[in-house]
Amino acid sequence: QTLRALFQYKPQNIDELMINTGDFIYVDPSQQSSVCEGWVIGTSHRTGCRGFLPENYTERASESDTWVKHREYVLTTTPRFLTRTKNEPNEKLNGEVLSSSMSRSLTNILPQQNSTLQRGVLVMRHGERVDQVFGKSWLQQCLTAEGKYYRADLNFPSTLPKRKDGVSHFEYDPPLSCCGVFQSRLIGEALLDHEVTVNYIYSSPALRCIQTAQHVLQGLKLDNKVKIRVEPGLFEWTKWEASRVIPNFMTVTELAEASYKIDTSYRGNFSLSSLVPSESYEEYVSRSSAVIKQIITSCSSKGVILIVGHGSSLTSLTRPLIGLPARDSSDFAQVVRKIPSLGVCFCEEVKEESKWQVANPPVTTLTHGANAAFNWRNVIVEH
Amino acid sequence: QTLRALFQYKPQNIDELMINTGDFIYVDPSQQSSVCEGWVIGTSHRTGCRGFLPENYTERASESDTWVKHREYVLTTTPRFLTRTKNEPNEKLNGEVLSSSMSRSLTNILPQQNSTLQRGVLVMRHGERVDQVFGKSWLQQCLTAEGKYYRADLNFPSTLPKRKDGVSHFEYDPPLSCCGVFQSRLIGEALLDHEVTVNYIYSSPALRCIQTAQHVLQGLKLDNKVKIRVEPGLFEWTKWEASRVIPNFMTVTELAEASYKIDTSYRGNFSLSSLVPSESYEEYVSRSSAVIKQIITSCSSKGVILIVGHGSSLTSLTRPLIGLPARDSSDFAQVVRKIPSLGVCFCEEVKEESKWQVANPPVTTLTHGANAAFNWRNVIVEH
Repeated sequence: QTLRALFQYKPQNIDELMINTGDFIYVDPSQQSSVCEGWVIGTSHRTGCRGFLPENYTERASESDTWVKHREYVLTTTPRFLTRTKNEPNEKLNGEVLSSSMSRSLTNILPQQNSTLQRGVLVMRHGERVDQVFGKSWLQQCLTAEGKYYRADLNFPSTLPKRKDGVSHFEYDPPLSCCGVFQSRLIGEALLDHEVTVNYIYSSPALRCIQTAQHVLQGLKLDNKVKIRVEPGLFEWTKWEASRVIPNFMTVTELAEASYKIDTSYRGNFSLSSLVPSESYEEYVSRSSAVIKQIITSCSSKGVILIVGHGSSLTSLTRPLIGLPARDSSDFAQVVRKIPSLGVCFCEEVKEESKWQVANPPVTTLTHGANAAFNWRNVIVEH
Repeated sequence: QTLRALFQYKPQNIDELMINTGDFIYVDPSQQSSVCEGWVIGTSHRTGCRGFLPENYTERASESDTWVKHREYVLTTTPRFLTRTKNEPNEKLNGEVLSSSMSRSLTNILPQQNSTLQRGVLVMRHGERVDQVFGKSWLQQCLTAEGKYYRADLNFPSTLPKRKDGVSHFEYDPPLSCCGVFQSRLIGEALLDHEVTVNYIYSSPALRCIQTAQHVLQGLKLDNKVKIRVEPGLFEWTKWEASRVIPNFMTVTELAEASYKIDTSYRGNFSLSSLVPSESYEEYVSRSSAVIKQIITSCSSKGVILIVGHGSSLTSLTRPLIGLPARDSSDFAQVVRKIPSLGVCFCEEVKEESKWQVANPPVTTLTHGANAAFNWRNVIVEH
């Protein structure tokens, strides 16, 4: 069994293993019997060292992920991508030396330059949402007794957009945090750097997705050229998000008044009223499959169709596109739980065969640490 | 014993406790005997619920931190701050109702408006550094076999500044990550929002501190007005940072050529050559105490003196200023370890008595989550 480190871990004891983000660790299930819960004993692929590590710093990796050399060669012999890249580390791809950091770069290798422009679909999760950091009570934390919004922590947005039905409706439709805006802008700028051509942008009606779309477009310097199509059919599996009632989303008019670049003439493939609370997994799968097919049909220009949705969108939209059946529902929850903010999946059309295939995304991963609150009194005065 | 939650924790089991960042949790040491290692059983001050929680999601709090009401009143009866604040939630401060989020706002209450401008010292830790996210091997991860820099993850800076002695010297003097730049800019903008008057800015010679200073100044829109004074005496305790040799810092000339707004005429109170590797704690304490006194003496204008240093600076510079002895060295390590990126401490001068006292910082905390790398192949195709 192979694990992949999601975070860096620095040993606190002599018998523990140093791991860096992206490291692969071999774990022999037969050796785990006497190990304390939450810990595993493993061997680092990078260093060859052996020791204890915290299991929740890792995710399960596929065995084949460590077949580095083979994968590297596949990439260099199939120049089939529709994006162009500056400062390509070609030397590394064709080099003979497998450096210690090679395994890390697996997910980070950028596509090759190719002038053939095809259709591509880039599915993206929204950025960090305020309730992800501050919990369900986030709105209470930044409202005065009179219901006036203030910024209780610098990661809260400096203002909330205006909505007619009152500020309390943000509770079930939370905005991005400032960090979420930063993440979205960074991905947009990276897409611009790699000269990715985005011709269409679709968003879930959730505010965090529309804000992500807006800031990605700003990073791409396309916010005055490509307008956001708000597609209710892209909303989260309602069993997860809306167990009793579908949130009151901001209307397209309100969004446009709040300076979001919305395509007000767009009519969704699904209407808001067609979303039902607590839909079954089968209903969600069939909605996702229908919406991606309708999007593909209505976007004929070559270049990238950007879809900003939820973690779940990365699997539920891409699998029907490339002809795979839906994951089973328990597997689905496992996979989706691990998708970070601004996680992306990419598919491209194979014109000759009129089908779609998975491809390397045009941008690399975005990995950063957490920042905790602290009390300055403890630092200066108290013990 | 009281703990303070550093992160949100969502229960995975029925017997676990939901905690939000900033929550206080009461823990009875006599009840912990049968609890699995790494877990404690506690009662939430906010919800009154009882259950298991992961100990490493918390830090030890002072008992008196939960004396909320008393502290709130102290703040409203001493309008002695030198900064002005917009959108002040005064209603809340003077209100009768102690809402459930009151304990959280403890560290976040903003100073009162006051037109009397005094001298203040704002000590700030630098932003997120690349090696904090990517580990000690960060430079290997983003250099090609030919030694050319490329951005292996979007949180690496898009370029590195030029330095004559070669890129390898960044290993011991790492730059900010993109997230670190975001954090610095955000604090600068918040200082501008609160109309804080910064007249002087000092920085440790470490690149991450100079970059933090630069981006804070940009956020403050002061980057063409106030120049950065690079003060070698502000460098980290060399026992932690430079056990064998002091890093080769970028020279003031190189920094200026790389567009950092440096005061090239400034001569440090300490010279670079006076920094010795592996200095004793006493040597570090005495250096810190000397440097803060020299800074205070040479900055006579009213307004804020901003000092960008290391986590350790927040205690080692402020305690001599307000007349407290240095912490003992084990205590020191404990406290410093918990200071987040852009953590700040603030002291102000009491003119009548010609001494300094601790005060509420002019900006609130900055709390955000981590973002992990993931492998898109697992999402679409693999199990």
